[in-house]
Amino acid sequence: MLKLTFLGTSSGVPTVRRNVTALAVHTSLNRDWWLVDCGEATQHQLQRIALSVHDLVGICITHIHGDHCYGLPGLLASAAMTGRKKPLILVAPAGVKAWLDATLQHTELFLTFDLVHVDLAAQAAVHRADGLLIERFPLSHRVPSYAFRFTFEHTRWKVDHDALRARGVPSGPAWGLLQQGQDVPLADGSTLAAADFRTLHRKRAVAVVGGDNDTPALLAAACQGADVLVHEATYTEATLQKVGPGPQHSSAQRVAQFAEQAGLPTLVLTHFSPRYDNREGMAELAAEARRHYTGQLLLANDLQTYDL
Amino acid sequence: MLKLTFLGTSSGVPTVRRNVTALAVHTSLNRDWWLVDCGEATQHQLQRIALSVHDLVGICITHIHGDHCYGLPGLLASAAMTGRKKPLILVAPAGVKAWLDATLQHTELFLTFDLVHVDLAAQAAVHRADGLLIERFPLSHRVPSYAFRFTFEHTRWKVDHDALRARGVPSGPAWGLLQQGQDVPLADGSTLAAADFRTLHRKRAVAVVGGDNDTPALLAAACQGADVLVHEATYTEATLQKVGPGPQHSSAQRVAQFAEQAGLPTLVLTHFSPRYDNREGMAELAAEARRHYTGQLLLANDLQTYDL
Repeated sequence: MLKLTFLGTSSGVPTVRRNVTALAVHTSLNRDWWLVDCGEATQHQLQRIALSVHDLVGICITHIHGDHCYGLPGLLASAAMTGRKKPLILVAPAGVKAWLDATLQHTELFLTFDLVHVDLAAQAAVHRADGLLIERFPLSHRVPSYAFRFTFEHTRWKVDHDALRARGVPSGPAWGLLQQGQDVPLADGSTLAAADFRTLHRKRAVAVVGGDNDTPALLAAACQGADVLVHEATYTEATLQKVGPGPQHSSAQRVAQFAEQAGLPTLVLTHFSPRYDNREGMAELAAEARRHYTGQLLLANDLQTYDL
Repeated sequence: MLKLTFLGTSSGVPTVRRNVTALAVHTSLNRDWWLVDCGEATQHQLQRIALSVHDLVGICITHIHGDHCYGLPGLLASAAMTGRKKPLILVAPAGVKAWLDATLQHTELFLTFDLVHVDLAAQAAVHRADGLLIERFPLSHRVPSYAFRFTFEHTRWKVDHDALRARGVPSGPAWGLLQQGQDVPLADGSTLAAADFRTLHRKRAVAVVGGDNDTPALLAAACQGADVLVHEATYTEATLQKVGPGPQHSSAQRVAQFAEQAGLPTLVLTHFSPRYDNREGMAELAAEARRHYTGQLLLANDLQTYDL
């Protein structure tokens, strides 16, 4: 039911094959989608896939660095120019909101829709709607950075077709009425009680999407019961040692070790330093992660959708 | 000697084939180049051609609308991340500078080079250097908008090879010394005077690059002696009539009529509404312009270089 479509997987600067960070979080249930981070040219990437900015419910920005938010002005301007009216939720640090306000002011950008800002620092549960809860978890980076935990829940009444057939009720309108919770009188004078033939089925999918972060273990609580963790793996451990702790990023090894310990079924690595944007580089990151993680390991590629 | 490389030729929003506005102005003389306007993802387009952000001398922004400047933060950030130290000239409206200042502040962007702002409103000659003069000319648009006139001048001493051969001086070191202006004593005791054998050759190329503008005739003075005019042709005349004067753009017809009257040898149309981004649309714009202009007509395409 959960789908992740990567719009950008490069750290800092774009490469020819990888744009800077952006990720679409959506489901097979409807056309709604959420965007986590919005690097420059995210709107350009959207033109190459089937997601429309008019179905975008909200945008979550993990932190204020440019490679995670410089695509916002253009995306919002294009949404306005193509006639968006529906309000758009923006879960973001106050600095991002202040920057957008400055952008609106200085570049005479007029939005045709409400931009509803939710301050990332103010609360842990940043969005709550029918079937979706989004919570944020603080990370460790050069600037305040957060992960988002998306919990999608879908419930549906199902009628027991076998039981109904056994009771002598073939496929027909009665099935639909029972599914809606209505008792159904039969021709023989008896009644089929909905409660006897329908049961509630729940589907749940939990995705944790991290921002820039040098301490994956901070996500221990967020990852409890999660189906997938999407986390930056900017470097290999050897490069991280060489670069030093200054940039406050993670290595493939550190993320893999954490994911193994947390028992995560699926780990998606992203936000790769441009130095790895070749066959050998990606193989090196993958091999390092595989040495420490036994679950399903994916290294994200631009414009690829992962059905989970 | 003059080269124009279009990085974006779409108006308002990008399309799959055309990015929003940006144009590289350069010459065959050296690697220096100037950028006129910097729509979102201009740095992405640069990755697909041979121009490097490290050879970029300056950026001229015609006006503050987002499709002409939203690529600035990312371009500057990437120049800094890849180690640029050389100062960068920014000829731009004060609003663009204020927006960049807000960007630096809110998104913790630290530049590794000086950004030297030249206020577009303050003076007509916005840049003067050895061999290059850039002047700006006010246009008519919803916000203050300008055209830039680039005058490149290249002078070079040339020695008269035929005259030297006739004088009995074959190709050799003497030719180089004469070219540098040194008189050359000969074995027979006589002297070759540089003044007798070298002459100054001048090359001059003038390009006028307009911003958004509904009144091409405002460029009459700018276009005197110009080799080429690059001007927006957002619509056909029929569409412009339908849209009304509000957006304050030009039609292919209006620009072509002006270029014919001004006697411009070459006219390059750009900044096309996305509705024309197909074979029929471009053919329509071209046919309309050709009905009114007899010079060399070009309709700009992304990533194409025009040698003039």
